[in-house]
Amino acid sequence: MKLKKLIEDYDIEAVLISSKYSLRYFTGFTGTTGIALAFAEKRFFFTDFRYVVQAKEQVEPNGFTVVKVERGAIDTLAEYIKNSGVKKLGVEDKHVTIAEYSDYKSKFEDINFVSLGDSLEKIRMIKREDEIDKIKKAVEIADEVFKLVVPEIKEGVTEKYLSNFMEYHMKRLGGEGPSFETIIASNYRSALPHGVASDKKIEKEGFVKFDFGVYYDGYVSDITRTVYYGENPSEKHLEIYNIVLEAQKLACSSVKPGITCSELDKIARDYITEKGYGDYFGHGLGHGIGVEIHEFPYVNAKTETILEEGMIITIEPGIYLEGFGGVRIEDDVVVRKNGGEILNKTSKELMILK
Amino acid sequence: MKLKKLIEDYDIEAVLISSKYSLRYFTGFTGTTGIALAFAEKRFFFTDFRYVVQAKEQVEPNGFTVVKVERGAIDTLAEYIKNSGVKKLGVEDKHVTIAEYSDYKSKFEDINFVSLGDSLEKIRMIKREDEIDKIKKAVEIADEVFKLVVPEIKEGVTEKYLSNFMEYHMKRLGGEGPSFETIIASNYRSALPHGVASDKKIEKEGFVKFDFGVYYDGYVSDITRTVYYGENPSEKHLEIYNIVLEAQKLACSSVKPGITCSELDKIARDYITEKGYGDYFGHGLGHGIGVEIHEFPYVNAKTETILEEGMIITIEPGIYLEGFGGVRIEDDVVVRKNGGEILNKTSKELMILK
Repeated sequence: MKLKKLIEDYDIEAVLISSKYSLRYFTGFTGTTGIALAFAEKRFFFTDFRYVVQAKEQVEPNGFTVVKVERGAIDTLAEYIKNSGVKKLGVEDKHVTIAEYSDYKSKFEDINFVSLGDSLEKIRMIKREDEIDKIKKAVEIADEVFKLVVPEIKEGVTEKYLSNFMEYHMKRLGGEGPSFETIIASNYRSALPHGVASDKKIEKEGFVKFDFGVYYDGYVSDITRTVYYGENPSEKHLEIYNIVLEAQKLACSSVKPGITCSELDKIARDYITEKGYGDYFGHGLGHGIGVEIHEFPYVNAKTETILEEGMIITIEPGIYLEGFGGVRIEDDVVVRKNGGEILNKTSKELMILK
Repeated sequence: MKLKKLIEDYDIEAVLISSKYSLRYFTGFTGTTGIALAFAEKRFFFTDFRYVVQAKEQVEPNGFTVVKVERGAIDTLAEYIKNSGVKKLGVEDKHVTIAEYSDYKSKFEDINFVSLGDSLEKIRMIKREDEIDKIKKAVEIADEVFKLVVPEIKEGVTEKYLSNFMEYHMKRLGGEGPSFETIIASNYRSALPHGVASDKKIEKEGFVKFDFGVYYDGYVSDITRTVYYGENPSEKHLEIYNIVLEAQKLACSSVKPGITCSELDKIARDYITEKGYGDYFGHGLGHGIGVEIHEFPYVNAKTETILEEGMIITIEPGIYLEGFGGVRIEDDVVVRKNGGEILNKTSKELMILK
């Protein structure tokens, strides 16, 4: 339905879907070699002998007919395009390479190519309930993994030991693996917003920041928790933790249809700024999640997208003090009619692990 | 040096390096956001504030000067290109998207873009000794992981359990993770050349095929071993195993500088064909490995590339009998002056696990 509307809006006859995540979303295909051609009414999926069986199982329920191709789909695609009388064809200009495009231009006769920009990605913004269920399950696994890793935080183990432990359990619990490179940043490294797990050993008296997620049936979760490891958190540790926590809760409780992304960002940012740490929150409040870890809408000061029912966004304010440490707290939140539904069950109160 | 030659060969003034693996190879950068501009003499690497510290450490030893850019490198790149009087600029047409290219065309004034095809990738074919050492280490970890997983092969455990176990140990042993999706295919699934680990449980009396590899310091290994699990391998199990083993050994001992890829493929293929199974070896004999799991040269019937000292290729013949099972045996082999140096130490004799 959404593809049909896109075809009408762009005044084209068909769309060529070639990028990994758009293929996954529109056709259901999880293999590595395939391309789809969608008309307003008919839809075709081209793949080679290696993937024909898998493709039939995955794409036919989504209305695509599988076409088996020999060595490269372009010649077969060209026939279908010609026989269907296509004059204007939408392409994913943000994914198709110059070499592929040059191939299209030489093989597809008399075609006007229309750049679709982010249009296919934007269709994915509003999630169906079956998509939300998969994300819920991905969040559930992440919550469980966090519960398991907490007792493993000990002096002398490395951040990489912890991330490896977590990724093992993600898969043991039915996930397909991490949805992005697991971030574990301890003590001074917690001030790095994106400090992926390193060989640094865990030491007492400092924050340990975990930012991680899981793929479940093609959908991601994304969660951040920051704990304190040691006996004596300083006033400053407690202060910045509580500011981030309040800002995060405030933003979560402000989620509702009708608010813009920039307004939501401003709520958390203003709170942190009032408390004197605005300069130390150097990234946006959050982003959409779905088949990719970063999707539309982006929740930052510049995005005027209006939140709608069925969107799922992360809410993840932070404060990062170089040389000292940093805190980020992040939940995945579904936009519901009456407000935000927070999917994560892991407590956000500061854990002080002795 | 090799970039300088490429610039001369293409009669251009500079090369824009933008793809992940080419950046990794030429500049040493392991982050996600950066682009390089290489002239015959000078080289620049453009990245934003998040990666400046990391980039200096990684790219300066390789002769690149770090340039810090604000939100998107294109404007800064355009200045450098203009100020250097570039008229012809080489681009990675197999990686640059239509949208990026259109951005280049609008921002870079009076420039002729020259498509480099696979030229940057082909520079990577011949490995330096420090690259070979990294691949050796990646192979060593893979050998160790295989030793650990063998005792875990038991009735009732799933293929995914085994792959998760292996990936945990890859990282525990210092690897960065799997170099591709781990293939574990048991019993009838072993007839699938690329059967990634599934929820299927291990059962007695059949092959279990493992095809996996490890990333170590940015370089991959790739190994396949097939074991028999059960008491009573049939004559056919033993027959096809031994044919593949002989073909693999024959090809390994034929590796030397001067032989072409197609000649090497033919040696293994002819042996399997003589034994009556030529139709069941439906893929090429192997491929190069390096910073990517599949690199030049591709070792198949159509590739006329001549093997040279310092190339590293896989040798991986197989026989796949649908519904019955399949065998593949694979080593990583360095082309040396006097022949092939097989990096894998894991035995290739059939293991029958009871």
